[in-house]
Amino acid sequence: MIDYQASFSRASRALRESAIRKAADLEASSSELISLAPGFPDPAAFAWDELREIAQSILTGSDPSVLQYGQTRGYRPLLDVLSLLLAARGIRATLQETLITTGSQQALDLCARIFIDPGDVVVVERPTYTGAMTAFANAQARLAGVAQDTEGIDLDDLDRVAVRERRAGRRLAFVYVVPNFQNPTGLLMSPVRRAGLLEWARRNHVLIVEDDPYGALYFDDRATAEGTRPLKADDDEGHVIYLSGFSKIVAPGFRVAWIAAPAEIASKLEVAKQSADLCTGALDQRFVYEVWTRGILERRLPALRARYRQKWEVVEEALRRELGGLVSWPAPRGGFFLWASFPDRLNTDALLPRAVARGVLYVPGSAFYVGHAADNRARLSFSAASPERLVTGIQRLALAVREELASTTASEP
Amino acid sequence: MIDYQASFSRASRALRESAIRKAADLEASSSELISLAPGFPDPAAFAWDELREIAQSILTGSDPSVLQYGQTRGYRPLLDVLSLLLAARGIRATLQETLITTGSQQALDLCARIFIDPGDVVVVERPTYTGAMTAFANAQARLAGVAQDTEGIDLDDLDRVAVRERRAGRRLAFVYVVPNFQNPTGLLMSPVRRAGLLEWARRNHVLIVEDDPYGALYFDDRATAEGTRPLKADDDEGHVIYLSGFSKIVAPGFRVAWIAAPAEIASKLEVAKQSADLCTGALDQRFVYEVWTRGILERRLPALRARYRQKWEVVEEALRRELGGLVSWPAPRGGFFLWASFPDRLNTDALLPRAVARGVLYVPGSAFYVGHAADNRARLSFSAASPERLVTGIQRLALAVREELASTTASEP
Repeated sequence: MIDYQASFSRASRALRESAIRKAADLEASSSELISLAPGFPDPAAFAWDELREIAQSILTGSDPSVLQYGQTRGYRPLLDVLSLLLAARGIRATLQETLITTGSQQALDLCARIFIDPGDVVVVERPTYTGAMTAFANAQARLAGVAQDTEGIDLDDLDRVAVRERRAGRRLAFVYVVPNFQNPTGLLMSPVRRAGLLEWARRNHVLIVEDDPYGALYFDDRATAEGTRPLKADDDEGHVIYLSGFSKIVAPGFRVAWIAAPAEIASKLEVAKQSADLCTGALDQRFVYEVWTRGILERRLPALRARYRQKWEVVEEALRRELGGLVSWPAPRGGFFLWASFPDRLNTDALLPRAVARGVLYVPGSAFYVGHAADNRARLSFSAASPERLVTGIQRLALAVREELASTTASEP
Repeated sequence: MIDYQASFSRASRALRESAIRKAADLEASSSELISLAPGFPDPAAFAWDELREIAQSILTGSDPSVLQYGQTRGYRPLLDVLSLLLAARGIRATLQETLITTGSQQALDLCARIFIDPGDVVVVERPTYTGAMTAFANAQARLAGVAQDTEGIDLDDLDRVAVRERRAGRRLAFVYVVPNFQNPTGLLMSPVRRAGLLEWARRNHVLIVEDDPYGALYFDDRATAEGTRPLKADDDEGHVIYLSGFSKIVAPGFRVAWIAAPAEIASKLEVAKQSADLCTGALDQRFVYEVWTRGILERRLPALRARYRQKWEVVEEALRRELGGLVSWPAPRGGFFLWASFPDRLNTDALLPRAVARGVLYVPGSAFYVGHAADNRARLSFSAASPERLVTGIQRLALAVREELASTTASEP
């Protein structure tokens, strides 16, 4: 037998697995399991009929480029569409400032490649998206967590962390934030905090990677498009790299996302993408382009927002009914996630096997923290499951929580 | 203005652009240009009608996973199909030994990530595929070129290079080879050379990355399936990481390729893929799966082989007619490429602008060499263009070559 350990690079020995991906594998192993784990969009909301029509019209062979290799930067007409889509979010971006990526995970990975040398610091919110932490950590970044409150990232703590890291002689690669319906907390960063963060970046000469998968999915009675205005929209000096995509609003089966960044950065990202995967799938890009130009996306967005709003309400009501007094959460105003806090003595890592045995899955809070501390919180995704299954899922979770609490109480001295 | 150079990682400052990708961008800029540059498959050979039918049957919404996030390892039924496809090539691979990637470029990139630390040596054939060199160089590998002859990689030179690099204290990450219809030379490695290379790898405890995009596209009268038998088929001790994909035999618009590797390596590649792009596109994988299970691939392969064989003949005849005596090449026995050698004094880098002005594009030989030496050779891809355009392309090339030769002769003292 060969000892492959000696063959692996040092970087690869430190490779981290995503807790969410592990949950997805677990989920795939049983259809009985109700999953509140991965942030999957609701497949019942996919535009199946329209997509079948699109397939008929683009797979005729009259345009060979539909199934050919494409340019690394992206399908040109889609890039043109992007500038309109970005403009609607307040962002002016030229063709030189945009880039299509194979999903937003690739965008995170490309940012890691071009900005991070081993030991460089990436500042993240505590908690934050685990897939981003994995991408940065795999580039051997040192992750530094900063507190957040209901308004968003804590600027005083950000300052403290930045000073501490710089005094230690370390380079700040960038600050990573998810201002809209943050993953995992669901929090919406306030306009004042956004302005403050941008000002902080200017003052400290630090880049910001702004990840915005959920911005279009605000709950109409609790937030507005204006409230989700990206930092990038007010980034006059070019400190912000803006990431968004079509996974949550069209479908993740098409791996199509995008980056808007200063031209020099976009150009560097493009070169990095060349050697990563040559180009994003031509057919996927064509589907998404057609969804946009046919007005399908625009027509469906209001119903999509209403759908997730209703699911969130279903989960809230079920939580109150089944676990009232034992769980609290910051009320989401959009997105896919409810960030549940249980009594301090309940460890959601320890709870997980019991929950799975009861037939429900979630992501333990520890997955979202730098350093993976055990935690009494859990991310509950209300996006994918049907309302009925959401209710059953919460009932199962409640059973598991009560059992776990009873067992921890019993075992205490 | 911000000086972004200071923001970029050291690794990113050394990022290399692919010469072939640059050519693709140039090509996209003008439809008048006849491109013999990128190794694009012939879109006239794509199964448009069958793909439309497949789209109708999979985009009904009855299986939501068609447009959902999928598992990192790949779509399970496609992985099962892979083991059959690999078995037909003589390779036994379990589920634990296979992995779907977002095109073979991602496979190369993942290999770079898990095997290469900065300064490690990757041994490549001279010349070799530029996209592979780029992926390895971007991981800060030191590329060491080894001579090849018409039988394949030169084992004596390989030995010399390996000894030299190891004596200098450097680690050999792996040897990268394209045994079937090599890119760019079109050469088919002989069975004896394959056995010798495998034996060399065993003796020297070195891994081999075997890249096989073109193996299925042998010319029936000049090669056999048995002649393309992968090294991996005889890799009893687990030294070979085998890469192949569907881009050349189905369509590159579906970004679906695969790796067969020892389980421990496949598992490490999977973790690296998680943070690179989460998963390969679900829809793309479904299309390819259906193409396989419906027998479309099997039915179409003989015609595909005949098509490329015919195109190669068209190019050979045109070259003899238009440039007889001024160009030679090793006769391809499959694949997409003809490796043209012009008179020594003709520099194909210098020729390129003249060729483009005449309306034809190719990739200069220098693109395929470690160190980018100027060269009198060029890779002519006969795969994408129609036979008529191939002939016109060669006529244009001949004009440019004769002009260039006249000008170099004129300017010599």
